[in-house]
Amino acid sequence: MSLLIKNGQITTAADQYFADIYCEGETISAIGRGLSAPAGSEVIDASGMFVFPGFIDPHVHIYLPFMGTFSKDTYASGSRAALVGGTTTLIEMCCPIRRDEPLAAFNLWNSQADGVSACDYSFHMGVTRFDDSVEKQLREIVGRGIASFKIFLAYKGAFGIDDTELFHVLRLAKELGVIVTAHCENETLVAELQRRLLADGKTGPEWHEPSRPTCVETEGVHHLMTFAELTGAHVYIVHTSSDDAIQAAVAARRRGVNVWIETVVPYLVLDETYAQGLSTNPPQRAASHSTAAGDEGKKKPNFNGAKYVMSPPLRARRHQDAIWNALASRVVSTIATDHAPFDFKGQKDMGRDDFSKIPNGIPSIEDRVNLVYTYGVKRGRIDLHTLVDSCSTQAARLFGLFPRKGTIALGSDADLVVYDPNYRGQISQKAQQMNVDYSAFEGWPIEGRPSLVTVRGRIQAQDGKFVGELGFGKLLQRQPTHF
Amino acid sequence: MSLLIKNGQITTAADQYFADIYCEGETISAIGRGLSAPAGSEVIDASGMFVFPGFIDPHVHIYLPFMGTFSKDTYASGSRAALVGGTTTLIEMCCPIRRDEPLAAFNLWNSQADGVSACDYSFHMGVTRFDDSVEKQLREIVGRGIASFKIFLAYKGAFGIDDTELFHVLRLAKELGVIVTAHCENETLVAELQRRLLADGKTGPEWHEPSRPTCVETEGVHHLMTFAELTGAHVYIVHTSSDDAIQAAVAARRRGVNVWIETVVPYLVLDETYAQGLSTNPPQRAASHSTAAGDEGKKKPNFNGAKYVMSPPLRARRHQDAIWNALASRVVSTIATDHAPFDFKGQKDMGRDDFSKIPNGIPSIEDRVNLVYTYGVKRGRIDLHTLVDSCSTQAARLFGLFPRKGTIALGSDADLVVYDPNYRGQISQKAQQMNVDYSAFEGWPIEGRPSLVTVRGRIQAQDGKFVGELGFGKLLQRQPTHF
Amino acid sequence: MSLLIKNGQITTAADQYFADIYCEGETISAIGRGLSAPAGSEVIDASGMFVFPGFIDPHVHIYLPFMGTFSKDTYASGSRAALVGGTTTLIEMCCPIRRDEPLAAFNLWNSQADGVSACDYSFHMGVTRFDDSVEKQLREIVGRGIASFKIFLAYKGAFGIDDTELFHVLRLAKELGVIVTAHCENETLVAELQRRLLADGKTGPEWHEPSRPTCVETEGVHHLMTFAELTGAHVYIVHTSSDDAIQAAVAARRRGVNVWIETVVPYLVLDETYAQGLSTNPPQRAASHSTAAGDEGKKKPNFNGAKYVMSPPLRARRHQDAIWNALASRVVSTIATDHAPFDFKGQKDMGRDDFSKIPNGIPSIEDRVNLVYTYGVKRGRIDLHTLVDSCSTQAARLFGLFPRKGTIALGSDADLVVYDPNYRGQISQKAQQMNVDYSAFEGWPIEGRPSLVTVRGRIQAQDGKFVGELGFGKLLQRQPTHF
Amino acid sequence: MSLLIKNGQITTAADQYFADIYCEGETISAIGRGLSAPAGSEVIDASGMFVFPGFIDPHVHIYLPFMGTFSKDTYASGSRAALVGGTTTLIEMCCPIRRDEPLAAFNLWNSQADGVSACDYSFHMGVTRFDDSVEKQLREIVGRGIASFKIFLAYKGAFGIDDTELFHVLRLAKELGVIVTAHCENETLVAELQRRLLADGKTGPEWHEPSRPTCVETEGVHHLMTFAELTGAHVYIVHTSSDDAIQAAVAARRRGVNVWIETVVPYLVLDETYAQGLSTNPPQRAASHSTAAGDEGKKKPNFNGAKYVMSPPLRARRHQDAIWNALASRVVSTIATDHAPFDFKGQKDMGRDDFSKIPNGIPSIEDRVNLVYTYGVKRGRIDLHTLVDSCSTQAARLFGLFPRKGTIALGSDADLVVYDPNYRGQISQKAQQMNVDYSAFEGWPIEGRPSLVTVRGRIQAQDGKFVGELGFGKLLQRQPTHF
Repeated sequence: MSLLIKNGQITTAADQYFADIYCEGETISAIGRGLSAPAGSEVIDASGMFVFPGFIDPHVHIYLPFMGTFSKDTYASGSRAALVGGTTTLIEMCCPIRRDEPLAAFNLWNSQADGVSACDYSFHMGVTRFDDSVEKQLREIVGRGIASFKIFLAYKGAFGIDDTELFHVLRLAKELGVIVTAHCENETLVAELQRRLLADGKTGPEWHEPSRPTCVETEGVHHLMTFAELTGAHVYIVHTSSDDAIQAAVAARRRGVNVWIETVVPYLVLDETYAQGLSTNPPQRAASHSTAAGDEGKKKPNFNGAKYVMSPPLRARRHQDAIWNALASRVVSTIATDHAPFDFKGQKDMGRDDFSKIPNGIPSIEDRVNLVYTYGVKRGRIDLHTLVDSCSTQAARLFGLFPRKGTIALGSDADLVVYDPNYRGQISQKAQQMNVDYSAFEGWPIEGRPSLVTVRGRIQAQDGKFVGELGFGKLLQRQPTHF
Repeated sequence: MSLLIKNGQITTAADQYFADIYCEGETISAIGRGLSAPAGSEVIDASGMFVFPGFIDPHVHIYLPFMGTFSKDTYASGSRAALVGGTTTLIEMCCPIRRDEPLAAFNLWNSQADGVSACDYSFHMGVTRFDDSVEKQLREIVGRGIASFKIFLAYKGAFGIDDTELFHVLRLAKELGVIVTAHCENETLVAELQRRLLADGKTGPEWHEPSRPTCVETEGVHHLMTFAELTGAHVYIVHTSSDDAIQAAVAARRRGVNVWIETVVPYLVLDETYAQGLSTNPPQRAASHSTAAGDEGKKKPNFNGAKYVMSPPLRARRHQDAIWNALASRVVSTIATDHAPFDFKGQKDMGRDDFSKIPNGIPSIEDRVNLVYTYGVKRGRIDLHTLVDSCSTQAARLFGLFPRKGTIALGSDADLVVYDPNYRGQISQKAQQMNVDYSAFEGWPIEGRPSLVTVRGRIQAQDGKFVGELGFGKLLQRQPTHF
Repeated sequence: MSLLIKNGQITTAADQYFADIYCEGETISAIGRGLSAPAGSEVIDASGMFVFPGFIDPHVHIYLPFMGTFSKDTYASGSRAALVGGTTTLIEMCCPIRRDEPLAAFNLWNSQADGVSACDYSFHMGVTRFDDSVEKQLREIVGRGIASFKIFLAYKGAFGIDDTELFHVLRLAKELGVIVTAHCENETLVAELQRRLLADGKTGPEWHEPSRPTCVETEGVHHLMTFAELTGAHVYIVHTSSDDAIQAAVAARRRGVNVWIETVVPYLVLDETYAQGLSTNPPQRAASHSTAAGDEGKKKPNFNGAKYVMSPPLRARRHQDAIWNALASRVVSTIATDHAPFDFKGQKDMGRDDFSKIPNGIPSIEDRVNLVYTYGVKRGRIDLHTLVDSCSTQAARLFGLFPRKGTIALGSDADLVVYDPNYRGQISQKAQQMNVDYSAFEGWPIEGRPSLVTVRGRIQAQDGKFVGELGFGKLLQRQPTHF
Repeated sequence: MSLLIKNGQITTAADQYFADIYCEGETISAIGRGLSAPAGSEVIDASGMFVFPGFIDPHVHIYLPFMGTFSKDTYASGSRAALVGGTTTLIEMCCPIRRDEPLAAFNLWNSQADGVSACDYSFHMGVTRFDDSVEKQLREIVGRGIASFKIFLAYKGAFGIDDTELFHVLRLAKELGVIVTAHCENETLVAELQRRLLADGKTGPEWHEPSRPTCVETEGVHHLMTFAELTGAHVYIVHTSSDDAIQAAVAARRRGVNVWIETVVPYLVLDETYAQGLSTNPPQRAASHSTAAGDEGKKKPNFNGAKYVMSPPLRARRHQDAIWNALASRVVSTIATDHAPFDFKGQKDMGRDDFSKIPNGIPSIEDRVNLVYTYGVKRGRIDLHTLVDSCSTQAARLFGLFPRKGTIALGSDADLVVYDPNYRGQISQKAQQMNVDYSAFEGWPIEGRPSLVTVRGRIQAQDGKFVGELGFGKLLQRQPTHF
């Protein structure tokens, strides 16, 4: 099968030019002007459209047993949602609990995707225990094409590792040349603050943020930085939510620590007032620099905020500005989602009397690119190249997928997003592919949408609809790249 | 005329892949595999070579009346040197003194290049006075394709402007959407420190650095940052030499100031011991983290150091590490040269009894790319993409030349460098194109060299020799881009 | 004449103990328990009272031709107000304008106080021009007992000096061992911002702060720090209003700069909402950490704010917390007033159509100690020792008055404040000694008051009333102390 | 018994004046000029001498089972050494290991001092485990006059506590109003670095510092700061050795954390070259700003360095400057010793083949004040008031001994040091009271010495000799003071 996309404005992390793209089989085989295709080729006219490399979401959860329940998506619904939103590659967190064996966990997670996923995928291998047996299994897993680990400084007892384990994971990662992604919150402080708040009768979702204040996140980052400095390992801070945490990483980078920073889309467009149940509207252009709670300031905190509970929590508005600035100056490398879908009814409300029991997550795999385009690029926060870089290219580079993924170049996989900047619409739970009973962005206007999305040359989504084939996605083989 | 470059590894700021490049006339018209060219085309086999976009040096002096003498290069020698070294576009500082009229100066500077230069060029328009007449002329000059200004916080009386002028230049720049490049050293402190040192009989070139310590540079940067913050102008700090100065800009960027940082190649490979006349050798791999003065530590400071006098001065070794780190993390955007060639005999020695009379400059236009490749990429300091980004792409973006220059893409100018990573040689004054009687890097090994250099499709240099046509270079039309 | 103060709790910057104090003539001649006094001595029972050393206000204006008018106090009213409020020594800014001769100015200022002042006094000698003649006069003035200079980085044309003058003033100060007090705001930025705001029709007092934002102050501090670093001079930043400015000084101190920081009482208890005309009430205990504008949030900015116009301006609330913290940890050394009384009617309203014409100043010489005691000590912000240290001892040390002033010790001047912590009252313009038609703190409760105030053994104020003798105050001879 | 000290220059943290001091019984009963004493009083002429308040060493070890051996001093030798050196109060670390019961430990430690010590003493109660039983015992111990805890973030398994224990200790301390002193080094990093160095055959004392680099200390401080911020506890960082650690505390103080910083005398006068066995001489005046290793630069690291092994380790020279600067600006509050005497022969050499087995400690209880006077005050680093403040007054304030100790005031304990600034001598192991077979300062000149030292009115030491009574010292009752 062959595909010719004509007349689009090719836009990568670095370049922007008009050209046709011809895909023979799964890869890009020609980029040029006035290309013609053999008979039988599919030909798409992308006039007036951007053509982006397929987007990569380097931080998602599809199969997630968590807090006594399971996240709602399967690879069927999740990969469809990803594709409709322009994301052609997922890197899922493979999260065994402490007592699980890594290989078994890897096989389990992989089995959820294998033959089901409509987009390509890989895993960050969660390391939630470290001993000789684990080390041996990790070496095997890296050999099977997994070039990154995931560790938790939070979630004591379940996922968290102790300092000795942390040191040894980082040493192993340094030896193997794989990067370590890390959830940086001090687990003890979270546990103690939760206990204290609940004991004081502070049980609503509005108390989730005070149970994990920015200093708890900054402590986690600072801690990781010292361990990275002394082991030489390459590390990647997932879902960075605050200016303070960013600054701790920037200071470490100055002294030579190999650290990269991820943020996730909720931190860019939402703030703590949503988790208080006080806001639901999109950020206003004018209000984006204000500290005001918006037009619903008279309401009292309420349980609707549970929809917006994730960890680290949504922060005060000023952190939004700081993170956008840090993206614009490439201090923050990637925008992921930490997609973790739990229904409001039946799941989120398990925490109705205790915020610490609200399953964490704000589903956004489907909306990431459109939100960043609408509220970032169109609002003048970042330019188009930064959108591509942070939502695709950097993830490919850091995680051993480049140049197969993350760019539009000869020989690269034909993962392409023909993006329509003239589309106008609204986000709505009813229309979404994600298998969850609400949208955190219900009714928000978007000012652009993928018109066509391909995975390795095959058209999988078109104009908001999944038109492809489940099971087409592959587990990507990644090579260690950080020595 | 057409040109086909086959089998090279195309390497841009973002991408790396194997492909042929076909240039029809002055631009890149096809990039593909197995391209063929019409009869009569020149065909180059780039197997085993990198193909880079032509490099841009955004900070050079060719015509420079300075400190009572003139820099030695003309556009004939200077553009030849640039091309041999892989640089296909120069942006020269047009530096009228305070009493000169901007338009006359612009015409004068342009007349030096017009019909002479073998490579393309533009100017940063020096603003060394600001009043209504100047403003009017600046508007006209911007209209003639000059999208950047240059200001000096140093060089009192000659080039320096006062705070009111500074404010109004930045306001005008903001209005016109042009970026302001700035030499950041506090002029009064330099003047007073020079006076004090000379009065104390401290006259040798080793006293040049103490007359402009890092805090003088940091003061300049901090000062500019506040003015940029309050006017909203986009600013660019030229020849940043110290970690302290970088940190002042980083702090400003965090609060939203639109600032970019340039360093120049001498700061990356030389240090204060050279200006003391104590070092001449290239930095050792192992020694690069040490603070030792190297193998010549027993010598006394001597006038040979005059060859290494520039402003800001070469710093203590630790700043090298800091600047390489800042390049690697994209905190510093560009590597230029501040090329300003003065002979050791007859010019530099005007300052034999008074370091403040040594004409400032370390000629390096010809060696920049090879030095960064050898002592940066090959030593593991930065990767190839960062080399391209800092030596070409970022300059194109910031100064309104992108995507015409700065990348390899369809429709871009066919400014290409076929780079031979297997070349081994040494830098030598005897072999150089620059019209100056010494090389600051005499005898230094280099581990790569441009094998072929084209300007708009025409081969201008080959294997260390200029093979092209003088006068082929054009004044580039640049559009304001920073609003 | 002799005086015996019995049973008080003597409280100095360091000590607290119960003892009697006997003053023979002008000095403290005995401190002990159960002291008795010769017949004819005045005996005061200070049971239940604190006995503090006389407070020193190191930053006041009494005679002040400024902005086309004169401040309202004379030494008669000003020194009475000081004494009633517990301040026994004033250091006034002697502020010639640029064209004035320093000696003539010194004589003029001194003549205002000589024979009139009821409390002791000295001057910081304003240096608003620097040349050989000025230098000679400054040497003579230092010889006459003036151990400190005052410079302005603000007030272009009137008081401000240029960078060369700044360098030479600091050099002279270093040589003479005198400290240089400095008003740190960049004058050009203020002038340009004023012009822009007024041109935009922003004429009310609420625009005074935006015309001198914190970055303008920080720029001034950073600038001074570099000059102090390179000259070695001891410097003192007057009326520091923002956390940002403090941090710039702290960073300099870390690298060895000899710098001390003064704040003034308005910054500790007022904020920008007062200058907007939106607040008049004292800070609430609970609200002190909030960012809310208080109970009058519905009002529109109005000209009543002119009462609260001073420079640097009152800031956002968060700076209050920062300054209190910096006092508690001794980062900020002194609390002064910058007392400068202008009537609301007839003076402040000269700026009714143009905030830049509002005479600057918030009269507070009379209220300083009571405000710091009530809103600092009683609210748990600082302890009693810090009150004494910042309102008396540090000023004595820094300005060459210690141990004559600033402590309670044998041989020290008998400047004593018997302070009644059980007094409860309110501040009121009607009751005040200051010759000005409003109080910035009208109706504010105070929870303590000087019961008795002595100057060199003579009782000058009692329970809110001046009971002493005008003209008793002396010009203090100060010795240079900073080498 | 009564004592009259005449004609001395009384010098406290704040004051300096000439007066006589009369001590009736154990306290100061009169301070005045021309005092006379009843017959039978001891009368001392202190002409030409300073009279200081007795110095307090808030961080010593006397009874110390550690690393398989015992420190050499008893309260007999240790208190004699303290007194000869001018220290009249010790606060010892009571350091049970994890499995010990606090009360039993407290009793054991107290029994070592009770009836033996010649000077007054108290304990910081080590908390090396935390559970309900421990909490109960701690409450009782506080009730018995112990107003401070000691915790270790280092020494895994032996003394170190985990994060949950840390949180609860701080909560309890906050509730009880006691301050928590903390050893801040990350224990896991130390353990791992030790293991790695030893595995690499790096066994000499010169590897002790690389096993505990400054970032390990800074990590400890940063960690503690976050826990202090969230509990509100008052904390005190013991033996701070590096600029980096200080800055972490300063940053925390800015955001309101209640933290104080202690350094110890070895960090002020020694550096890493001593622990490498490369230096033994006192710091040279000129060399104090240099980074050179001194005159013994040709030697190889050797085991003599073991004498200088303590934790945190001696650092690079630049940290000395930073700590002196921080003392001068009162950023660092106290100078202690961390006195822990182990013989070179038979104890230190247990680590001849393994630096991690060298018992930690540099004996200095006897030399602290003379070293600070000679190398601090006489070298112009700090003034006399800062000496008194950091070596006496601040310890008294922070640990609930003020104003009984730490000052010279009516009613205070008559702990006095008549200090002879004209004494010239040398430190020598032979002459010392400390029971240890070497002096870390052998042959160092000192330029002052206590001439007379009293404890509660009794003369205990005179001119370098102990002349008092063992067993005179008392366990001090301290009250919680930090709420």
